[in-house]
Amino acid sequence: MGVVMSSEPLVTFTLDPRLQRDTVLICEWPLSSVLLMNDARYPWLVLVPRRNATREIFELDADDQAQLGRESLRLTQQMSDYFSAHKMNLAALGNIVSQLHIHHVARFPNDQTWPGPVWGAGSAIPYKDADLAQVIERLQHLLA
Amino acid sequence: MGVVMSSEPLVTFTLDPRLQRDTVLICEWPLSSVLLMNDARYPWLVLVPRRNATREIFELDADDQAQLGRESLRLTQQMSDYFSAHKMNLAALGNIVSQLHIHHVARFPNDQTWPGPVWGAGSAIPYKDADLAQVIERLQHLLA
Repeated sequence: MGVVMSSEPLVTFTLDPRLQRDTVLICEWPLSSVLLMNDARYPWLVLVPRRNATREIFELDADDQAQLGRESLRLTQQMSDYFSAHKMNLAALGNIVSQLHIHHVARFPNDQTWPGPVWGAGSAIPYKDADLAQVIERLQHLLA
Repeated sequence: MGVVMSSEPLVTFTLDPRLQRDTVLICEWPLSSVLLMNDARYPWLVLVPRRNATREIFELDADDQAQLGRESLRLTQQMSDYFSAHKMNLAALGNIVSQLHIHHVARFPNDQTWPGPVWGAGSAIPYKDADLAQVIERLQHLLA
């Protein structure tokens, strides 16, 4: 059967079902999937490192921790610039979905829950189909 | 008057007045002040990089970004272990206090706002004086 030469992981990454339901895949970065939260109230992207059974950042190995830091920083800066965010909100919570995921939300003084947090405040307003297609295309162009 | 030989910054760092009011200093790490949120509802510590006029992580220089990552990781892991946290919550929000600060909260399924976020939920319950002194002493022993 020979030696496996690929450096690809042998175990397939499985996205949490709730993240699967609430988000749309924009692109794959070296470590993380970049997901759009389907909530038109805020520009809101989520990084999910493709590592199964990981709940906390400190459970990643050192290389992955550094890579996640770089990817989070890049995403924060790109979102801040692209959306002219008043403030970026970053968070790793995981009280409901335990699979490690990092929220990146562009906030504005006139958004629906400012200055409160976006989590646990009201309900998501899904994008209309045509808007969603356009948002995905623009974000793929920005981030791919 | 000669060359200034010290590598210390010439500008004194000034903590935001609201952070000053709501927190207690535990110790100084190489980059950040480690502050205890005076809210007995949760084990809640805040890292504040001692850099004036900084609102976003990407505004720090590369060395400071890496150091903040190390300090945040260390604090997260130490809090998780010490408090036997069910889940650590990390966040950089800054919608109310714009000075860059990173929340680190140990969460439990029986805490007051689980599984919701701690921000914008109810009001802080300050520690009793005797409890606060004890918590500070223990955290200084753990983190100094």
